[in-house]
Amino acid sequence: MARIICAGLGPGDPDLMSVRADRALRTARCIAYFRKPGRPGMARRIVQGMLAPGCVELAMEYPVTTEIPLSDPAYNAQLSAFYDHWAERLAALPGEVVVLCEGDPFFYGSFMHLHLRLQGRCEIEVIPGITGMSGCWTATDMPIAWGDDVLTVLMGTLDEDTLAARMAGTDALVVMKTGRNLPKLRRALSRAGRLDAAWLVERGTMPGQRVQRLVDSDAEVAPYFAILLVHGQGRRPLALPRAAE
Amino acid sequence: MARIICAGLGPGDPDLMSVRADRALRTARCIAYFRKPGRPGMARRIVQGMLAPGCVELAMEYPVTTEIPLSDPAYNAQLSAFYDHWAERLAALPGEVVVLCEGDPFFYGSFMHLHLRLQGRCEIEVIPGITGMSGCWTATDMPIAWGDDVLTVLMGTLDEDTLAARMAGTDALVVMKTGRNLPKLRRALSRAGRLDAAWLVERGTMPGQRVQRLVDSDAEVAPYFAILLVHGQGRRPLALPRAAE
Repeated sequence: MARIICAGLGPGDPDLMSVRADRALRTARCIAYFRKPGRPGMARRIVQGMLAPGCVELAMEYPVTTEIPLSDPAYNAQLSAFYDHWAERLAALPGEVVVLCEGDPFFYGSFMHLHLRLQGRCEIEVIPGITGMSGCWTATDMPIAWGDDVLTVLMGTLDEDTLAARMAGTDALVVMKTGRNLPKLRRALSRAGRLDAAWLVERGTMPGQRVQRLVDSDAEVAPYFAILLVHGQGRRPLALPRAAE
Repeated sequence: MARIICAGLGPGDPDLMSVRADRALRTARCIAYFRKPGRPGMARRIVQGMLAPGCVELAMEYPVTTEIPLSDPAYNAQLSAFYDHWAERLAALPGEVVVLCEGDPFFYGSFMHLHLRLQGRCEIEVIPGITGMSGCWTATDMPIAWGDDVLTVLMGTLDEDTLAARMAGTDALVVMKTGRNLPKLRRALSRAGRLDAAWLVERGTMPGQRVQRLVDSDAEVAPYFAILLVHGQGRRPLALPRAAE
């Protein structure tokens, strides 16, 4: 029976990988990772220079990414067949394979779709990782949430009305999957009265990291892994002025 | 000028610390950590066996913990004086000190109160960590959030009405600071219709880890670091039955 280790790679800086994931990668004889066709892939880039000589690499190339709208049934069918295919292949491997996953595997990660399909078919170990959002709020040098702050994590793919309502109704806020949703996210933040408090972090913890207030950016599109943040200002034993003001 | 490194220790298993935090701890000449008076302290326990010989240890003992209600102004005043005192002491150190922090320092961590007070007084580096909640949902062997699930993080210290409303209005849910709030949290989950879907994870990733459905626990009090989870069931390209059912 195959043994699959899914290694959470953390936010991007290889130094922020867990000791366990680092060890699994350096001793791996076979790795697998998702990527867009023709691209190196973010996960593979993070482990550059860490792999042992002779390590076998399996690139799992997404059949569709942004060509078909999420709402199209064909999108679901193609992705489902893709995950079925790779679950089959990985489960049929003779030994151990380390599957790479940016961030934390069980937090909106693609590996979850393999995990679901591999149940009962092989041994699986999941190594958690530092989330991309942790890397990003650390990059702002300000805590994301204090005391009894409510923290809400939203995907930029939600509709504008839902986003605006959720943004207005939380203390601390994280928005992932920003990309081409940036104009919609600006409108939603503005409707929620949170635009001035929002930060945009691009390539958090990675080369070319950029941290700025959203109002200081005029970008229409953000890198796929860019994250929007609004820091909570909750209860704290306090003598000094607030950090974020 | 002092240099302060706050090392996020992750969820508890020392193997889940980042490579950078691991290195900082093993080479530290001075460390500092919070604890309750007369207790070893969770953070110090995590690094047991990792410190170099001769490493100087500063235990920062909370003046009050649960003896005074959070709402009492004396609680705020005593804690504030405590953080002021330690910010002063750490900033006056001649060299580098590594401050330990369970989980991720900027995610509801005590270090944030020192960070606020140390601005401009010394050099500070914060090393993010795997959050306790990541360790706990990984321990349930089920993804916490998929697709465009909304994830809400709540503190068990909130009032029951707020909790119930928030629990009903989210896809995926994390509740921290459970402890003696467990009976209130059960009532709030029940009112929100989420009680049957809730999991209780105690000592996640640590010796004595326990993972169970909340309805299978009759505990009135949970360990301080215990976390409640409700897994999201969001959009996913799916042929197979859902994992959590």
